[in-house]
Amino acid sequence: MFLITIFSVVFSNVSAQEKKQIVRLAKLVIDSARLEDYKALLKEGIETAVKVEPGVLTLYAVSEINHPTHITILEIYADADAYKSHIQSPHFIKYKTGTKDMIKSLELVETNPLVPGMKIK
Amino acid sequence: MFLITIFSVVFSNVSAQEKKQIVRLAKLVIDSARLEDYKALLKEGIETAVKVEPGVLTLYAVSEINHPTHITILEIYADADAYKSHIQSPHFIKYKTGTKDMIKSLELVETNPLVPGMKIK
Repeated sequence: MFLITIFSVVFSNVSAQEKKQIVRLAKLVIDSARLEDYKALLKEGIETAVKVEPGVLTLYAVSEINHPTHITILEIYADADAYKSHIQSPHFIKYKTGTKDMIKSLELVETNPLVPGMKIK
Repeated sequence: MFLITIFSVVFSNVSAQEKKQIVRLAKLVIDSARLEDYKALLKEGIETAVKVEPGVLTLYAVSEINHPTHITILEIYADADAYKSHIQSPHFIKYKTGTKDMIKSLELVETNPLVPGMKIK
């Protein structure tokens, strides 16, 4: 059993750290009249979070070229504590309260990454 | 005019390199009976592409926990040439031909990133 454990640890492609990650797609539709205001607040919130929170591994946001009010954010947090800390941060609360009247719909989709540890070059 | 150009180059948040990037969401639904085969081929294709192609900046694939046959891939290419080269690569052709009977639907959504140059820690 000990040998099997050692084998698993050595040959697993997924580290314990990566197994604890929270990986999510946030899918939003924004009021078209407020889109630029929304994007400015989202950008500020994202840049602050990634800069000051070590456990916010990425917040990669895109808008669809053919439907610019449709926003998707790939969110990766180091673990559940990092996520909990994020949603209590002043910059997140500023984003959340500042944008609440601009968001027509929000869907949070929990996911599993196919290749944990994948980066952006 | 020369001074304005210098100013733009120095103070722009988006580099010329980042402006040329192709950023896309690929949304797929996979035949549930072939899901594990599909994921193995996708994983192999992704890991090879990111390893051997400098212009493939990421292929971050996730499956939805509540709908595991629903796959989304955040694809970032350095520029149009990098994308063209990718779809002509032997590993992409192997993935594409090997999975064609496993894919129930495929939607390619062209996007603009909100924060170009965003990474994954």
